[in-house]
Amino acid sequence: MCNTELIVSAPGKAILHGEHAVVHGKVALAVSVNLRTYLRLQPNPDGTIRLQLPNVEAFATWDVSSLQPLRPPCAADPWNMDKLDSALFQRLRDFAGFTEETLDTHSMAVLAFLYIYLSIFAESRELPSFTVTVWSELPPGAGLGSSAAFSVCLAAAMLSVQGSVSLPPLDTESTARWCKQDLELINMWAFQGEKVIHGTPSGVDNAVATWGGILRYRAGNITPLSRVPMLRILLTNTKVPRSTKLLVAGVRDKIKKFPSIMGPVLDSIDGISITCEQTLQEMAGHATPEHYSVLEELMDINQHHLDVIGVGHTSVDHLCRITLAQGLHSKLTGAGGGGCGITLLRPGTDSLVVQSVILELKDCGYDCWETSIGVPGVQLHSMSSMTADVLSVFNSY
Amino acid sequence: MCNTELIVSAPGKAILHGEHAVVHGKVALAVSVNLRTYLRLQPNPDGTIRLQLPNVEAFATWDVSSLQPLRPPCAADPWNMDKLDSALFQRLRDFAGFTEETLDTHSMAVLAFLYIYLSIFAESRELPSFTVTVWSELPPGAGLGSSAAFSVCLAAAMLSVQGSVSLPPLDTESTARWCKQDLELINMWAFQGEKVIHGTPSGVDNAVATWGGILRYRAGNITPLSRVPMLRILLTNTKVPRSTKLLVAGVRDKIKKFPSIMGPVLDSIDGISITCEQTLQEMAGHATPEHYSVLEELMDINQHHLDVIGVGHTSVDHLCRITLAQGLHSKLTGAGGGGCGITLLRPGTDSLVVQSVILELKDCGYDCWETSIGVPGVQLHSMSSMTADVLSVFNSY
Repeated sequence: MCNTELIVSAPGKAILHGEHAVVHGKVALAVSVNLRTYLRLQPNPDGTIRLQLPNVEAFATWDVSSLQPLRPPCAADPWNMDKLDSALFQRLRDFAGFTEETLDTHSMAVLAFLYIYLSIFAESRELPSFTVTVWSELPPGAGLGSSAAFSVCLAAAMLSVQGSVSLPPLDTESTARWCKQDLELINMWAFQGEKVIHGTPSGVDNAVATWGGILRYRAGNITPLSRVPMLRILLTNTKVPRSTKLLVAGVRDKIKKFPSIMGPVLDSIDGISITCEQTLQEMAGHATPEHYSVLEELMDINQHHLDVIGVGHTSVDHLCRITLAQGLHSKLTGAGGGGCGITLLRPGTDSLVVQSVILELKDCGYDCWETSIGVPGVQLHSMSSMTADVLSVFNSY
Repeated sequence: MCNTELIVSAPGKAILHGEHAVVHGKVALAVSVNLRTYLRLQPNPDGTIRLQLPNVEAFATWDVSSLQPLRPPCAADPWNMDKLDSALFQRLRDFAGFTEETLDTHSMAVLAFLYIYLSIFAESRELPSFTVTVWSELPPGAGLGSSAAFSVCLAAAMLSVQGSVSLPPLDTESTARWCKQDLELINMWAFQGEKVIHGTPSGVDNAVATWGGILRYRAGNITPLSRVPMLRILLTNTKVPRSTKLLVAGVRDKIKKFPSIMGPVLDSIDGISITCEQTLQEMAGHATPEHYSVLEELMDINQHHLDVIGVGHTSVDHLCRITLAQGLHSKLTGAGGGGCGITLLRPGTDSLVVQSVILELKDCGYDCWETSIGVPGVQLHSMSSMTADVLSVFNSY
């Protein structure tokens, strides 16, 4: 049994610059996106564990006693977890009746939940009993880090219940963040969840969902930028399906075919990420219209470069044209070949302009959200900090 | 008096790759374009020199005796002509009543004609008397080397009359070319004509009009490629006016503003020119559909790069979209900011497709020609080789 009720949230992520180039050792900037995943954990008096994922209409209940035998014999050292506990992973698959081919969002979420739950409570006297309800503003499978936000929420909530991290005091604040060391632990466990779901994730998505703000990523090294501004954006999902694996392979082929042409393009993208990082750090002090002009120019240039390396798509070209007609600058974000695009808004961009652009994009069949980037990572919420929308979802379950 | 009647022609030029990058020490490929300037020289029995330029509605007649006093005291050494003969240039301006501000096409053409005429015949016993009629398929001021084609035709015709170069035998052929050494002399004198018209030309335009084919240009060195294919193209003039000087300055500013981003883009353009050169030389042996695919890909990439360095224009974007809708690939050519675009056609591109694209481009208000690149440079024509169109123009004067 568990006595704590809590609500946590974690943001989505987008790539501001450096997608694809990062595969070839260049700098990428990953940013948190204020489309958040919310998790509510409530104690259960009845000795069951319940997982409720209304986004994917997945609802599961297990008797704690049935999960007990699946527990690993001893707790993993979170600072030394290179690989998943493959024995535990296999036991969970067998228990749930999944094969290696079971890859749907719902099943993967269940596996990640059980893996984190059983690992974190491996050495607890008895497994706690609670209901976890997760509701996300993020579309799944769109490259916006929805699985990482899920894993980070799971890790933060369960580590807090287990006591490995200290629940930050909410006091008079409506939200609170864990201390740096606790966030590191949360990030480690969330990374395990990501491995369950994705096999060999880069670790960027869970880092963004944990730390928030903006992260610099290069050759496997992830560094949160110390001071960054929060920026208004539009995030658009063209809903054109894409295969990241095929797109990455296509870029590799192009580099092999035209090394003297594509090599410099990757160098130029590196320059864009580094120039953007410098600009953002200047903006954290005092943002001027010139800073916004530079950010816009960098987006335009990178969008051309992404076309050059072969990951553009007419749907994104269309997005760019629609927004540019209103003076707004866009680029694809993530794998490309359709997928999502990001549009920078200035602080003074008229909301009527924004609304008309959103309408036009929706008319194309795209999903479109006005949101922010550079927002806080995983956080604990007071009930009063919750929007009516999310509360109403939680209260339905 | 002069006894020879002759018709010569010289092609226009376009930049296939490397425009703007060439200013920063990168390779450019300049190609001859089969929109030609035709010059007919006819002896006059009446002691006059007549220049007829129906394209610009310019018609001038001088008594040879009035030109006699303007002659330079001795002939220039054509192999050692770094600069214009400024005294002669000034005498001609005074004679024609032009100031330093007189820069219109008509006046510049007259000055170049008189400069070349008086220089080439500087040491002749008496100035010859003839009528020169020039008709061009090239639009003036569109960056297509119309002034160079004019200067090359003037130099070739007058050097042939004067005897410094030998008229190539036409025999049974309908056109003939001068020998290499004679072409060098023609090119030197044409360059002088270009200096009269443009002040400080690069020498590329007259080299293309002289040698034809495709030239590699880098850091002031101009090298004709030894074996190149002739390629079908569409050449489109958006007629959007542009200032080459302002565009070049804009690129310089962008490089200064974002050196780590723009430097690699110039390197990539260099890679495009070099890859294109290799591909063209392979194609001269045996052209395959794969070669055409590479040429198309290089055009697409370079078009993006030209947008990135800031010389793109919506009119050219529009051209690219219209042609791409029919599977044809385009890029701007030359200074950009509007101006001209080039579209590659494959040998098998259906003429119905080409006609429909041309119609659509003309509907946008653009001028559009189906022509070829990589064509012969300056040549001598038999009457039978002339098209009815050009002959009918010549016969009207």
